[in-house]
Amino acid sequence: MTEQTLILDGARVAQDIKDGLVSRVKRLSEQGITPCLATILVGDDPASATYVRMKGNACRRLGMESLKITLDAGTTTEELIREIQKLNTDPNVHGILLQHPVPHQIDERAAFDAIAIEKDVDGVTTLGFAQNAFGFAAYPSCTPAAIITILDYYRIPVEGKHAVVVGRSPILGKPVSLMLLNRNATVTICHSRTKGLGDIVSQAEIVVAAVGKPKFIQGDWIQDGAVILDAGYNEGNVGDVDYEACLEKASAITPVPAGVGPVTIAMLLKHTVDAAEKQLG
Amino acid sequence: MTEQTLILDGARVAQDIKDGLVSRVKRLSEQGITPCLATILVGDDPASATYVRMKGNACRRLGMESLKITLDAGTTTEELIREIQKLNTDPNVHGILLQHPVPHQIDERAAFDAIAIEKDVDGVTTLGFAQNAFGFAAYPSCTPAAIITILDYYRIPVEGKHAVVVGRSPILGKPVSLMLLNRNATVTICHSRTKGLGDIVSQAEIVVAAVGKPKFIQGDWIQDGAVILDAGYNEGNVGDVDYEACLEKASAITPVPAGVGPVTIAMLLKHTVDAAEKQLG
Repeated sequence: MTEQTLILDGARVAQDIKDGLVSRVKRLSEQGITPCLATILVGDDPASATYVRMKGNACRRLGMESLKITLDAGTTTEELIREIQKLNTDPNVHGILLQHPVPHQIDERAAFDAIAIEKDVDGVTTLGFAQNAFGFAAYPSCTPAAIITILDYYRIPVEGKHAVVVGRSPILGKPVSLMLLNRNATVTICHSRTKGLGDIVSQAEIVVAAVGKPKFIQGDWIQDGAVILDAGYNEGNVGDVDYEACLEKASAITPVPAGVGPVTIAMLLKHTVDAAEKQLG
Repeated sequence: MTEQTLILDGARVAQDIKDGLVSRVKRLSEQGITPCLATILVGDDPASATYVRMKGNACRRLGMESLKITLDAGTTTEELIREIQKLNTDPNVHGILLQHPVPHQIDERAAFDAIAIEKDVDGVTTLGFAQNAFGFAAYPSCTPAAIITILDYYRIPVEGKHAVVVGRSPILGKPVSLMLLNRNATVTICHSRTKGLGDIVSQAEIVVAAVGKPKFIQGDWIQDGAVILDAGYNEGNVGDVDYEACLEKASAITPVPAGVGPVTIAMLLKHTVDAAEKQLG
């Protein structure tokens, strides 16, 4: 590419979203409502603790509240669900985030599905997944929503494009695939059992990396002019994409950090404000 | 292809499934339970009336019951939902089928979602869709389930294969894509806005035609040795696949009729028996 690659600036997109929330939070506060996100952290994984802290801080910076629930690493599914149910019925809590992953003894799906759909601002419930797949979710999963928001922000066309999603998790690969499909992309979903992955990725006009392996997506897999969205965040601030190698080929790319990550948090805040506004009726 | 193309005999697969149900229906009947499928037909579309009659007849041939509800073409969403709710609470009804499509004034999604998940034997609810997408639905949508069942019956490997699904409806294209994905296929989902459809289909080792247009899938799109599943059923007993042209290329293909159609009805019967057995506790 002789043209300069566009760096998709997630920090800027996130800031714009958050700027748009300030007046909404103020208006709510005039009505006596402070949007409140409850975060649940089970166990003491340091990365998870950092994520939860970042989300709490992001709330407070916008004048929102953050209720932090920390549970022992040995918490059972039943205990966790009881905590979630308390938050479901707490009128001061508008959104609930259960930090992923939870310790292995917990039935994560059961815990996610204990979250009331109207407080599922992180978009993790089974029902919320399907509503999103059918295009009418109140709160689509935050990382997929962030990816779509970045594409929209930079007016990158999706309709009729061939998008290749690498990864098929319930809160990332699957929902983002269906969201791109609903925007009229032709979508190929790849994963660990895919054969000839490089050849398939090389057909993509839009690549979504959602695989959780550092620098997994190779530069020589990328078609000239492709748009690359890197939803990975691995140890050492490295994404799922071999950034330097892919940068040369792509027409646009999200960096890591300051790409999809900050927009994901902004979507979470936006969804929490949306939920709080519903309390106004 | 010099080798003979395998004709995937849906009538035979369906018969095997129904044969397997006979003893289960008998056992239930000894306990005083007759598995009952309630069918709802709104309006007087002759094709829909035929489908409903076929499903009712299929029930009776197995010693199951079929409760046929016929509603006026002018029925409102509210009226339809009230009928569904009656069936939800009727202990003699084990499965509910709302014949698709419904007249335009009805909110089809709202009507589908009024069906209690434990009676959603046709797999049309929003929640059922997501449970299927995550691999734990009690009753996956019947046509997608039929396609997977045919692949299984003929021991056609899916893992690592590239499957191309043409169509993205909530009860066919989307769920079958996710079911193939869950079986470790690499899945491409195409639709009316897809560019270069023929080129994409020509990469497929498994082709699922779910588009609702007669003879839409062309022979020269088909890779030598591909497996073709035709979920279409158009006027004049014609599928979505140009059968004669595709037959020459495919290693295996479902005919129309006697392909996916009869297996779809068998899945509906099986799900209704499954639901009735749950009443035994």
